[in-house]
Amino acid sequence: MNYLQQPQLIEQHSFEIISEIIAAERPDYRFNDATQEAMIKRVIHTTADFEWLDILWFSPDVIEQLTASLQRGCTLYTDTTMALSGINKTLLAEFGCSCRCYISDPRVVAHAKEQGITRSMAAVDLALQEEGEKVFVFGNAPTALFRLLEKEAKPSAVIGVPVGFVGAEESKEALVESGLPAIAARGRKGGSNVAAAIVNALLYRMREAG
Amino acid sequence: MNYLQQPQLIEQHSFEIISEIIAAERPDYRFNDATQEAMIKRVIHTTADFEWLDILWFSPDVIEQLTASLQRGCTLYTDTTMALSGINKTLLAEFGCSCRCYISDPRVVAHAKEQGITRSMAAVDLALQEEGEKVFVFGNAPTALFRLLEKEAKPSAVIGVPVGFVGAEESKEALVESGLPAIAARGRKGGSNVAAAIVNALLYRMREAG
Repeated sequence: MNYLQQPQLIEQHSFEIISEIIAAERPDYRFNDATQEAMIKRVIHTTADFEWLDILWFSPDVIEQLTASLQRGCTLYTDTTMALSGINKTLLAEFGCSCRCYISDPRVVAHAKEQGITRSMAAVDLALQEEGEKVFVFGNAPTALFRLLEKEAKPSAVIGVPVGFVGAEESKEALVESGLPAIAARGRKGGSNVAAAIVNALLYRMREAG
Repeated sequence: MNYLQQPQLIEQHSFEIISEIIAAERPDYRFNDATQEAMIKRVIHTTADFEWLDILWFSPDVIEQLTASLQRGCTLYTDTTMALSGINKTLLAEFGCSCRCYISDPRVVAHAKEQGITRSMAAVDLALQEEGEKVFVFGNAPTALFRLLEKEAKPSAVIGVPVGFVGAEESKEALVESGLPAIAARGRKGGSNVAAAIVNALLYRMREAG
């Protein structure tokens, strides 16, 4: 069989195709800036879904805040091990950052049971007890996002893209209204893969920038 | 804030909403059988994308083959750690099965470098050297799927849903043509989250069946 086998060429060619499709099908579409463009295109690369051109919302300050936080060696907290798996942790470590997911931590399991809350909520509670600069990355659990907001936490930024049919849209609208530096997916779509793609897109931009 | 916090209720309500939307928007749509229905609905649950009603392809024998393989304690091999993360490994273990991802195995890294192939391909090569009944689960790498097919391997079944713009569609069409027991996503869509959702849907069905 004859097929392209160089990962970097495959990726480069993929992004060329994505750009061509956008130019052909959405000739009037404009990205706000190059980092948002990189994030949206990487989400399309991850989902093959061009609806992402229209549903990813950015607060005015979020790119600047996220970039600064990563440069200062923040900790990312994800709601799922899938999001944790998808994030480029090698590159994250080069910026002095780390990534944690507490969903299966024994303290979280016990706290959730005691309080009668979801483990996603208990994982947020645990994260908020830790020192250091925090960015939350949610791809799955509306309850995690609601918990963060009801605790009136002030993380450096939130990537809030829970997918789903019960609470997901409402949780993301609450994030948009919160005034926090945030990226949110409008509507039902999202996912751990989308959350990881957004983080990775920024890491690759920062690497290119040196 | 007032929001639903019981994971099982959230999931149950989500599937009710998905069923209502299908009934309202696609009144003539019929599932081939209850397991395919469970798989397609779980993929929609994971993606919030109803295009999955039309793009998930099943070979006539695949549900029976997959179920039998899981009952015999097969090994699942995934192409990404994200798919591995997303699969319910507790439930998998209850059926005597396990799940492996060799993408970062030092043998795979070395073999890929020596041969000038992708790590995804080298991971397939390593898996094929192992004893035991195998099911391959690919959500990301067309090269893994092409490799499996060019090696003329005879796994028990293949879940082939690589997402993307370069080779993904072609790799899945080759799988459809292969005659192997398979589930494939037609077109560009797919993903590690989709691959995991398909596996989990079957595991939950098998658990319900006792």
